[in-house]
Amino acid sequence: MTTTLQDCRAMDQNDPLRKLRDLFVLPEGVVYLDGNSLGPLPKATAARVAAAVEQEWGQGLIRSWNTAGWFEMPRRVGDRIGAWIGAREGEVVATDTTSINLYKVLSAATRIASADAPGRKVVLSERSNFPTDLYIAQALCEERGWSLRLVDAGQLESELRTGDVAVLMLTHVNYRTGSMHDMAGLTALAHRHGTLAIWDLAHSAGAVPVDLHAAGADFAIGCGYKYLNGGPGSPAFAWVHPRHADRFWQPLAGWWGHAAPFEFTPEYRPAPGIARYLCGTQPVLSMVALDCGLDAIDAARPLGGMQALRAKSLALTDLFIALVEQRCDGQGLSLVTPREHGRRGSQVCLARAEGAFAIVQALIARGVIGDFRAPDILRFGFTPLYLEYEDVWKAVEQLRQVLETGEWRRPEFNRQQAVT
Amino acid sequence: MTTTLQDCRAMDQNDPLRKLRDLFVLPEGVVYLDGNSLGPLPKATAARVAAAVEQEWGQGLIRSWNTAGWFEMPRRVGDRIGAWIGAREGEVVATDTTSINLYKVLSAATRIASADAPGRKVVLSERSNFPTDLYIAQALCEERGWSLRLVDAGQLESELRTGDVAVLMLTHVNYRTGSMHDMAGLTALAHRHGTLAIWDLAHSAGAVPVDLHAAGADFAIGCGYKYLNGGPGSPAFAWVHPRHADRFWQPLAGWWGHAAPFEFTPEYRPAPGIARYLCGTQPVLSMVALDCGLDAIDAARPLGGMQALRAKSLALTDLFIALVEQRCDGQGLSLVTPREHGRRGSQVCLARAEGAFAIVQALIARGVIGDFRAPDILRFGFTPLYLEYEDVWKAVEQLRQVLETGEWRRPEFNRQQAVT
Repeated sequence: MTTTLQDCRAMDQNDPLRKLRDLFVLPEGVVYLDGNSLGPLPKATAARVAAAVEQEWGQGLIRSWNTAGWFEMPRRVGDRIGAWIGAREGEVVATDTTSINLYKVLSAATRIASADAPGRKVVLSERSNFPTDLYIAQALCEERGWSLRLVDAGQLESELRTGDVAVLMLTHVNYRTGSMHDMAGLTALAHRHGTLAIWDLAHSAGAVPVDLHAAGADFAIGCGYKYLNGGPGSPAFAWVHPRHADRFWQPLAGWWGHAAPFEFTPEYRPAPGIARYLCGTQPVLSMVALDCGLDAIDAARPLGGMQALRAKSLALTDLFIALVEQRCDGQGLSLVTPREHGRRGSQVCLARAEGAFAIVQALIARGVIGDFRAPDILRFGFTPLYLEYEDVWKAVEQLRQVLETGEWRRPEFNRQQAVT
Repeated sequence: MTTTLQDCRAMDQNDPLRKLRDLFVLPEGVVYLDGNSLGPLPKATAARVAAAVEQEWGQGLIRSWNTAGWFEMPRRVGDRIGAWIGAREGEVVATDTTSINLYKVLSAATRIASADAPGRKVVLSERSNFPTDLYIAQALCEERGWSLRLVDAGQLESELRTGDVAVLMLTHVNYRTGSMHDMAGLTALAHRHGTLAIWDLAHSAGAVPVDLHAAGADFAIGCGYKYLNGGPGSPAFAWVHPRHADRFWQPLAGWWGHAAPFEFTPEYRPAPGIARYLCGTQPVLSMVALDCGLDAIDAARPLGGMQALRAKSLALTDLFIALVEQRCDGQGLSLVTPREHGRRGSQVCLARAEGAFAIVQALIARGVIGDFRAPDILRFGFTPLYLEYEDVWKAVEQLRQVLETGEWRRPEFNRQQAVT
């Protein structure tokens, strides 16, 4: 059965989340399918950041560490993120970057593994994991005399069964394919074989249902500027299961993770719980923007929360897949993201042997912003907070035109830039 | 000879840097002597941050990584900082926090030392160094099987002569005392004994003359939100001498330090030079504010640059010391900061056996913002960019009144807060 523009508009009419779109700045003429890379600006953020600059910093000066609550922000904002990933209060900090937080939790995990399963010195991950995760693990393993074992997703289970893996380190939703792991199943399998599980939620937090406690996960980290709409480079987050939090501390043992930072004692004494995963002074302006991003997603709570967001996310990605197959048939595109709902994140990736980079550029020129991931992936993120079903129609229509006209072959779309 | 308020006003009339004060927001009724903890807001920052939020993020969205130059900021802003510390172009990155950057350079230094002076496993520092530096070194030494040796400043030279020190790690200007080390002399002594020198410039960059190349330093790190006026928690910086930059990479081996981050290859290949000291995505809004802070200090260049700033800084601190001795005599205050110009940073610290915390609170209530550093220090920072000589007069006059009236004994000034 063919889906029409009218069908899409009808879906928008019936969308219980529709009014949330009004919370965001969405430039005229743009269909934004890159919220999985950088979420758009919530309308409330500009005034809140301006107040942080002009009032809190400008007038409050140093006093604002107390009076404006700056000092508490990593924990307060962390708790707000925690509520979207099945963490409890006091278990999450918003701080530093995803890469740095991975270094912290992976360091702690290797220490715990060395204590509980001495002799095991293998970190297992997926070869197509986001590279920064692999780089961090590679450097840390080299430092510790450990090894990083990379396999395809299909081999993870058999590798876990070898019984020599100390730490399983995975990204829940793959950045390149949009494929989602079974967090509870893999964590349970890992635990049965004495392996700790670290989950990178960069493409999950705010995007798909995550329940860290239900899954029994050991550690998690993630990103604030994708589905949480925290703004460019906003702080990332870290979660450690309470059973591990006090056992060791991470090596980035800065004063913010000290039990009494303002006593200025020369000996490090780690704070209890997750606070020991803090290190240095956090970028307040960027943290304030992240706080505003959480206001925007929290507005979905009375409208059904994650259940409603997930339902719409799947409907958006289902629609995109159906329309691409219906309207771009024979154009050399193949679906990379799983069709099965339980295995799909909130994005759809298409592969094309030729011209993937240029097609993405041509789409951007037409106002449809997705991104290219080397070597051959067209990646489209679908964020239910602000996207309409009609946006999906428009995106596929532009894709169809770009392909049918062959305009992507123009030289201006084939110049590689530093960042895409 | 007694200095009068009229003398101070005359000094302001003759101050070649006087007009720079107009670049800053300074709240009515406040004398701000805490720019060594958090520099005040430059007037131009609010509009620039608003443009980054509303235009670059709001309208440009993901495209701004290229079009607004976000991706280049750590290097571009780093170069601007480098110009104030005697680094050359391409040698400094603005990124992460001071604590994290120390972890990076100390990791690299331990690797270099292990290669060049195998067997040495001692990091030498000053017992009264800023605690986060000691915590980071302590954790790293523990991880590596090294040891951290802490001594008083007076013992540093003899310790270096033992010949077993791998790395000397010092903060150039002490946060608690305002005492400044002889960077060139200690570095030369360190090198004569086969020791690498790391300098923390948190209280130096933008505050006192620093010439890393002339001093022959090996590594340096520092802070963006003190004398560089980058705003609360703005990114810190790292410098590595070119002779070391390509030899090893630091363990926070994230994708921003990769030679080709957008190739998304699974193997880490460090970027040449200082870029390998980057790790993850930086907080753009906070970085933009740091860029504005550098505009403000760069405005001092045509007025004599660091030479003029240093001359005024010394004149301000000389004046403060003279007025305190003249007007607060017999009040139990003792001078902690060296009188000798060559040994003094841009702050003055006073010790008082009783009531230091409460006196600082009482001063803040009167609009004179300094800070307390445990256990007995009243700390006052003097930033020549925006302070007037008359501010110094006002500060001492309020201090005199707080002490003579004994109002600091009131209960409201004796309640400890989380952060001071």
